[in-house]
Amino acid sequence: MRFGVNYTPSVGWFHSWLDFSPSDTARDLEAIASLGADHVRIFPLWPVVQPNRTLIRASALQDVATVVDIAGSFGLDVNVDALQGHLSSFDFVPSWLDSWHRRNMFTDPDVVASTAAYVRALAAAVADKPNLLGITIGNEVNQFAHAPHPTPHDITAEQGHAWAAAMVAAARSGLASGSSGSSASSGLEARVDSSASAPSDSGSRPRPLVTVAQYDAAWYDDAQPFGPEHAADHGDATVTHSWVFNGSAALHGALGPGSVRHGEYLLQLAAAWNRDPARPNWLQEVGAPTNVVAPEDAASFTEQTIRHVLDAQHVLGVTWWCSHDVARSLADFPELEYDLGLFTNDGRVKPAGEAFAAVARSGTTGTAAAPPATALVLDDVLPDGSDRHGMRADCAPGGRFAAAWLAVASAEPDGRGPQVVLRSRLSDTAMLAARGIERCVDVPADLDATAIRVAHPATTP
Amino acid sequence: MRFGVNYTPSVGWFHSWLDFSPSDTARDLEAIASLGADHVRIFPLWPVVQPNRTLIRASALQDVATVVDIAGSFGLDVNVDALQGHLSSFDFVPSWLDSWHRRNMFTDPDVVASTAAYVRALAAAVADKPNLLGITIGNEVNQFAHAPHPTPHDITAEQGHAWAAAMVAAARSGLASGSSGSSASSGLEARVDSSASAPSDSGSRPRPLVTVAQYDAAWYDDAQPFGPEHAADHGDATVTHSWVFNGSAALHGALGPGSVRHGEYLLQLAAAWNRDPARPNWLQEVGAPTNVVAPEDAASFTEQTIRHVLDAQHVLGVTWWCSHDVARSLADFPELEYDLGLFTNDGRVKPAGEAFAAVARSGTTGTAAAPPATALVLDDVLPDGSDRHGMRADCAPGGRFAAAWLAVASAEPDGRGPQVVLRSRLSDTAMLAARGIERCVDVPADLDATAIRVAHPATTP
Repeated sequence: MRFGVNYTPSVGWFHSWLDFSPSDTARDLEAIASLGADHVRIFPLWPVVQPNRTLIRASALQDVATVVDIAGSFGLDVNVDALQGHLSSFDFVPSWLDSWHRRNMFTDPDVVASTAAYVRALAAAVADKPNLLGITIGNEVNQFAHAPHPTPHDITAEQGHAWAAAMVAAARSGLASGSSGSSASSGLEARVDSSASAPSDSGSRPRPLVTVAQYDAAWYDDAQPFGPEHAADHGDATVTHSWVFNGSAALHGALGPGSVRHGEYLLQLAAAWNRDPARPNWLQEVGAPTNVVAPEDAASFTEQTIRHVLDAQHVLGVTWWCSHDVARSLADFPELEYDLGLFTNDGRVKPAGEAFAAVARSGTTGTAAAPPATALVLDDVLPDGSDRHGMRADCAPGGRFAAAWLAVASAEPDGRGPQVVLRSRLSDTAMLAARGIERCVDVPADLDATAIRVAHPATTP
Repeated sequence: MRFGVNYTPSVGWFHSWLDFSPSDTARDLEAIASLGADHVRIFPLWPVVQPNRTLIRASALQDVATVVDIAGSFGLDVNVDALQGHLSSFDFVPSWLDSWHRRNMFTDPDVVASTAAYVRALAAAVADKPNLLGITIGNEVNQFAHAPHPTPHDITAEQGHAWAAAMVAAARSGLASGSSGSSASSGLEARVDSSASAPSDSGSRPRPLVTVAQYDAAWYDDAQPFGPEHAADHGDATVTHSWVFNGSAALHGALGPGSVRHGEYLLQLAAAWNRDPARPNWLQEVGAPTNVVAPEDAASFTEQTIRHVLDAQHVLGVTWWCSHDVARSLADFPELEYDLGLFTNDGRVKPAGEAFAAVARSGTTGTAAAPPATALVLDDVLPDGSDRHGMRADCAPGGRFAAAWLAVASAEPDGRGPQVVLRSRLSDTAMLAARGIERCVDVPADLDATAIRVAHPATTP
């Protein structure tokens, strides 16, 4: 079980890539390591690295590699996200993909090939780092794929699969080219250094993970082209981002079970689509947004959220959003972004930071326990076997399935939320056994629940 | 009469601001100076300098100031454009003004105030440079103000005036704050250095110019909110950009009078709106685009274009687009952009460069001659005194007024194209005398002409 933090640079936010400062970075990362975190997630800005479709800036890649090295010096592993893309309400789209040059981000052959070239180059630039946790294709790129994005690049689910497969292949290709020693850095030495110097790495380093990250419309909005299968069928782990401003906190209260268990719920919901029962699940983003969680509740929210996450099976880790409050000197952020940090902008640990540190330092491992024995059945298909439109709305906060999951969770003797099993896979007894599922329960027919409309994350990190 | 070149960096195009190299810059500028040019026009990228609405990067301003210094070391004055904005088919709009943060670029109070802050800071950063020619608010910002821009920020003409006035005031404020000695650099020393080292500067330096640059829809498209008055009523000179892919070359042939006199025509047309007869007119962009001018005609086009410009009155200068061909390694540019340079991308002088140099080195001054004595009357108002919609279409290539101007120009004994006088100002005899206008002629009633639709410059530099 990994504990990490999404790294939001204290000076200049992500615009700091334009004025990269190793010393500012080192100060921030040292603070993050002091909380007991074992990894950070970092976010290059796409237009900064690839300002022209065929220009991938070597110096920008070097800056990313330097951040990974600095993190390693504090014992931190690093996950590198490629396509930003979207961060904290701001979109960063290269000029070659916008305005007069606008083409579909996911399907235009030239765009996809060049986007893959960037992902590959970024992965290759860090492939040999002993403390590389993995590559994520980009932060919630599915936000660009449908309304309510202001100018969506609409696609079909199938086109989303083709794009995700191409990006994952590009990342793996980059990782392989780096490890093969074809890059300037020495892969072999890096691996030797790894076991010697990286405190979080015991012996040989696991293969870096490649992942695809989505915002929760993938699970909650039937119209979103990227869905649960895109999370479960691509890459090496199933990634979830939990933001209770999606209606959970409005419906259940900031510290209600539907809020502090939302991360756990989303992990279970997403895992239902995993084809490999042992596939890891990663709560890659979760935070305490002040528009729905009062600052005085942030520490409790943080502690309860993480405790519940520990109850889920095959959890790779939890990565808190975020390290540092956005500076008030920067304009136009949603108000909540100025108070999402575990640290204030000037580096003081906040109560949520203390709560995070208490769990992270305890060395708790959630993965040792047996999986929850109960599973709630999700009606993913109609009687004729076709996909059931409306299933995702049922899963959204306040929906029938979400309400049923919370009811089962609160009734379980051990307090652990149930797993989720798809109706379409219910006859796969080998899979049920491998998942440790001992009893399956249906959503009660007489359940009284009304899904609320999922708030769209113009404000999602 | 000034001869200059729009500087397109040979390495990395304008993305080179992300990897600013004084030595690359020096090599390019030395080459430009070798042509006999006395100035360059340079183009910071807006999102690079102001990535957040309240973050204006000091290091980016310093890079711009360094380019001005390097230019000065080669005897070149520099005009700095602020809001790019638009360059060679690419739009560069900061993330705080796009997507979820989209607001009207010209009217939103926060946006206008912060845009003005950038213009002011940029002007202040170079205010004390002895070789500063001036500040242009931005390159053809009026492209963003109306269709056919893909996502225009529509405004009224009045809103355009308010915006232009605010930007000009910001530039002047920045220039004043720099000269007052409030900035870090020493204005006094810089001025002393000026007369000692800048070959183009004889004695005390003229006040830097503040200008507003527009693409030619301002004169040719009745629907464009920025019009002739915006060019003539703001700043210190009236700026024109001449691109014969606007229909001129299609109609008249690359070397036909309607093409090689287009720069001259546009200067005369724009000057008609000047309220001060002595106001300078600046052909700030003109080039030989290969989509309509064959490479073998580029030198002749260049020579003839500049010779005709010399026939106009009160011409501040001509600034050729551009210095260096775009590198073929960069993707997605309109084909013509790869061949617009006076130099190849690897620095060899092209025939057009030789033609430019021949005129620039001759020391020709067009401003000494008396103004053309003939003026063609432009019907700018209806009989009731209201603005005449359709006037701008008449002025466009192939339009009645444009055709009449060419006919008069070819009939003049001295071969110089006529001035243009507005019907609404025809009774101002003092103005006519000050402009040196001795006879006014009307567009013949039986003129046979059909305006062609002005091609929109998705491909305009």
